Amino acid sequence: MRWSNCYIPTLKEAPADAEVVSHKLLTRAGMVRKLTSGIYIYLPLGLKAIEKTAAIVREEMNRAGALELSMPMVQPADLWQESGRWEFYGKELLRFQDRNGRDYCLGPTHEEVITDLVRGEVRSYRQLPINLYQIQTKFRDEIRPRFGLMRGREFIMKDAYSFDRDEAGADKSYWAMYEAYQNVFKRLGLRFRAVEADSGSIGGSFSHEFMVLADTGEDTIAACTGCEYAANVERAEVAPPAVPATLPAVGAIEEVPTPGKHTVEEVCAFLGVPQSALVKTLILVADGKPVAALVRGDRELNDVKLKNLLKCDELELAAPELVQKVTGAPVGFAGPVGLNVERVFADHELLASDGWITGANKGDTHLRNVSLPRDAKIERYADLRVITPVDACPRCGQPIELTRGIEVGHVFKLGTKYSEPLKCTFLDEDGKEKVMVMGCYGIGVSRVVASCIEQNHDADGIVFPPPIAPFEAVLCCLDPKNGETLGKAEEFYAELKAQGVDVILDDRDERPGVKFKDADLVGMPLQLVVGGKGLARGIVEAKDRRTGEKTELPVEGFAEAFRTWRAAVRAGWGL
Amino acid sequence: MRWSNCYIPTLKEAPADAEVVSHKLLTRAGMVRKLTSGIYIYLPLGLKAIEKTAAIVREEMNRAGALELSMPMVQPADLWQESGRWEFYGKELLRFQDRNGRDYCLGPTHEEVITDLVRGEVRSYRQLPINLYQIQTKFRDEIRPRFGLMRGREFIMKDAYSFDRDEAGADKSYWAMYEAYQNVFKRLGLRFRAVEADSGSIGGSFSHEFMVLADTGEDTIAACTGCEYAANVERAEVAPPAVPATLPAVGAIEEVPTPGKHTVEEVCAFLGVPQSALVKTLILVADGKPVAALVRGDRELNDVKLKNLLKCDELELAAPELVQKVTGAPVGFAGPVGLNVERVFADHELLASDGWITGANKGDTHLRNVSLPRDAKIERYADLRVITPVDACPRCGQPIELTRGIEVGHVFKLGTKYSEPLKCTFLDEDGKEKVMVMGCYGIGVSRVVASCIEQNHDADGIVFPPPIAPFEAVLCCLDPKNGETLGKAEEFYAELKAQGVDVILDDRDERPGVKFKDADLVGMPLQLVVGGKGLARGIVEAKDRRTGEKTELPVEGFAEAFRTWRAAVRAGWGL
Repeated sequence: MRWSNCYIPTLKEAPADAEVVSHKLLTRAGMVRKLTSGIYIYLPLGLKAIEKTAAIVREEMNRAGALELSMPMVQPADLWQESGRWEFYGKELLRFQDRNGRDYCLGPTHEEVITDLVRGEVRSYRQLPINLYQIQTKFRDEIRPRFGLMRGREFIMKDAYSFDRDEAGADKSYWAMYEAYQNVFKRLGLRFRAVEADSGSIGGSFSHEFMVLADTGEDTIAACTGCEYAANVERAEVAPPAVPATLPAVGAIEEVPTPGKHTVEEVCAFLGVPQSALVKTLILVADGKPVAALVRGDRELNDVKLKNLLKCDELELAAPELVQKVTGAPVGFAGPVGLNVERVFADHELLASDGWITGANKGDTHLRNVSLPRDAKIERYADLRVITPVDACPRCGQPIELTRGIEVGHVFKLGTKYSEPLKCTFLDEDGKEKVMVMGCYGIGVSRVVASCIEQNHDADGIVFPPPIAPFEAVLCCLDPKNGETLGKAEEFYAELKAQGVDVILDDRDERPGVKFKDADLVGMPLQLVVGGKGLARGIVEAKDRRTGEKTELPVEGFAEAFRTWRAAVRAGWGL
Repeated sequence: MRWSNCYIPTLKEAPADAEVVSHKLLTRAGMVRKLTSGIYIYLPLGLKAIEKTAAIVREEMNRAGALELSMPMVQPADLWQESGRWEFYGKELLRFQDRNGRDYCLGPTHEEVITDLVRGEVRSYRQLPINLYQIQTKFRDEIRPRFGLMRGREFIMKDAYSFDRDEAGADKSYWAMYEAYQNVFKRLGLRFRAVEADSGSIGGSFSHEFMVLADTGEDTIAACTGCEYAANVERAEVAPPAVPATLPAVGAIEEVPTPGKHTVEEVCAFLGVPQSALVKTLILVADGKPVAALVRGDRELNDVKLKNLLKCDELELAAPELVQKVTGAPVGFAGPVGLNVERVFADHELLASDGWITGANKGDTHLRNVSLPRDAKIERYADLRVITPVDACPRCGQPIELTRGIEVGHVFKLGTKYSEPLKCTFLDEDGKEKVMVMGCYGIGVSRVVASCIEQNHDADGIVFPPPIAPFEAVLCCLDPKNGETLGKAEEFYAELKAQGVDVILDDRDERPGVKFKDADLVGMPLQLVVGGKGLARGIVEAKDRRTGEKTELPVEGFAEAFRTWRAAVRAGWGL
């Protein structure tokens, strides 16, 4: 492709509403334009990056034996009513009626449609397992679409669905997808980590998120520095504490006045004790009923863990009125002693010590010398808190490191969550009708491109890994009006194409500075400059966009020199 | 690909609601499944056929210098309000509100979005011309979705939009697309014809439809047997008649009673005259005002021609009440003499004779000896009727042939229909702000696959042209349990792949009859049988799906023999 024939509308300024770097750079590099809130046009270069990503995803899915199909974006309501999600999905599911008044939605995901297809097609165990996928446009009516392609309303996703005879088969399908995802993200040249993720009420450990590591990520990952363990902090386990054989004897409870001290910080500073000496009592509402959760004063409750423990659908902090009702005190003075809440749960760390400071369920008052076993009614001690950097790996005990990441993929063992209500059954070898065991596997294709930029950029623009770059190489002809220079550039251009490099020839009649700036902004990994003094000296200047390192490639023997240099740049990307 | 790893759910029976052969065969061949009215799932084989079609379209668009981008399916109402189409588009435009109550639609086409993009990007004549295209899913809420992929609600389309400085540039862009379309349909192996189409109120001859020829087509094409002229009958011109220097003298008008004779057939039979002796008077309503149109009794009014002549938006037959009002008689007795309609138009054929029978504007009565020049007030004589097989070519006078076709592509010079209201302007070389001149160019990609089947099928199933076939070749291994036979089949399989043939190896443990039936149903153009007596004799049996012709390819020298045979089969398709 020649730059003069392409459409790459680079901009000096980022749009005013762009909050994150990927949104700014995708716009400035002429790759996307916003049509309306959360909805983007992919310009030629943006589409190329997406297509290159999609092609690698497709290859790895095919290699793993998944079969590509394509399902509609418009889905009938009846299937969603059958699965029960029509009621539960909330406003992200964009609903509408057609001209005949029938209910439809824009597909945010395709479990219902694929399960409906498979139940109509598969009759016998001989037709299983099957794994079907598509790369398709989805729509989720996000309440606050933002961050450009990171959280748009209309986006491109690869979604795969596996159907198996039994749990063992489903596990095999799951791990095959896990491997395929590892291959995809390795091949894309991204620094990523597969982390254990919360699988919600379905249970089991069969959910992994694939996170592109980036400081700007919305998710936090707890990764062990010693072993392979990594998990979303939402889920990261905290090892049970070392509980001493005997705990120190605890004296009688005494009330202490803490006038106007509502927060842990205020109370501890006032009493002159460390925050770890206090027990925080949180009042929550689980599916409409009040519950209490206790964690050490310097810890944070992990509500996903509590939700899973309670197996509830909704969990939220209680309103001040309810706190007043069950504690008899304003917010800030709740405690486990004499609390009017039936179900009280405590983080297992609280087993490791005794004699706590807690709220007194009385305004402006706390208690000292509270012994939980003695003074409170705890239903269960369990892992309830958010992991911290001082915690040890729950697997090997080595230190944990917290890093930030962007979720770009998710593999999930669904079990029979959809096949059961939709009656997706088959006749097994033993002649019995059984429900299929499903898995679902998503990659946010447009999101991969955005998160790749969040991970790889500098002050000059995007630093694309070669597999995602719209063009792997740019060949900048310094003086295209000079026939000899242009002729030489065309020669190199032909050579690069012969080597299978997707290259763009910058043949524009622009100043070199403009061309260099554009090349850096768009982020082509391999940058070659043809013309000027270099060409006079018999060399082509080559720049590795990632490192900025410059190399001189001889005009004589260019093909071989380029091949070697390209391999070195790719190796720098771990490719 | 191996058949055993693929998902090709062939069926013996077509679905009950399938009316046309492409719908029946696409379903039976396991290529599509209906999700809901007018909305289909593309199964792996259906998707392959679509992707192969799309790839050829993409190549030819790129070769013609068009640039691929991708626009959203969800479009904001405000752009449609700006173009004026929000009001006029009708119910095919599926409208809905998002969670914030803002109006959107599902894109049935993208003129508004692309014009909005270009007006925001292009400032100078130096950035023109530009031609942008996408291959994308569209939605039209058809009142009666039917015929499977032929007229679905959700479908895949390639749509391109060109922007030029002036008319001359727009014409050049138009003809470049015309050429690209010729190349696309030639390369797809389809029998097609580019025909002049009606371009509605925009005028000019700059609209062509690309028709796949098929007896089941909904459109009728008038094509000259002598020259290149071809046009949709909607538009096909009828040459002016040879008008004699003097017409026979016409006697005085006389009333004849025609009791209860309403139709042309009834009146002419009753009076014992040919239908060509009568003038039919049609009362219509054009944008709310009554008009009359006269054509010979044996002709049909072409309302598209009348509409273009009147430059009106709406044209429909008058209701009986209005007919009664302007003629003073019930329907069936209208005539030009004394008609209470201001604007009366006559087909120019009526200039070639005189002394007509017409309605008398009086119940149960007709007139004889009507001379239009003498007795009626005709605003204009013009080409107003539908062409017939007895008409001559309007260009060369040779005979016309009427054939049926399916519209799969449309190129259209839009002019400033969208750029004007949307203020899509640029600064020209002379420093003046000018409105861009646009063209739009569509190919119904999913429709191409369906119409290809309408054109190419037989009692056994689909007869795919090699470029569209999901697999160009099937290699049927007769006895896959026999290691030696399977080994040989695998060898040929590898050889075909090495020759760049997209081949499927039928390695299923099924009876040969089942395999042959499936191969014919799915319509693979090249069918090879490995095993049995043939293999014992040192040959592979090869069948051309189109002709049914069988050839024996020797095992020794298979590669070369196959290469030759493949070329011959392709040549039979005109490839």
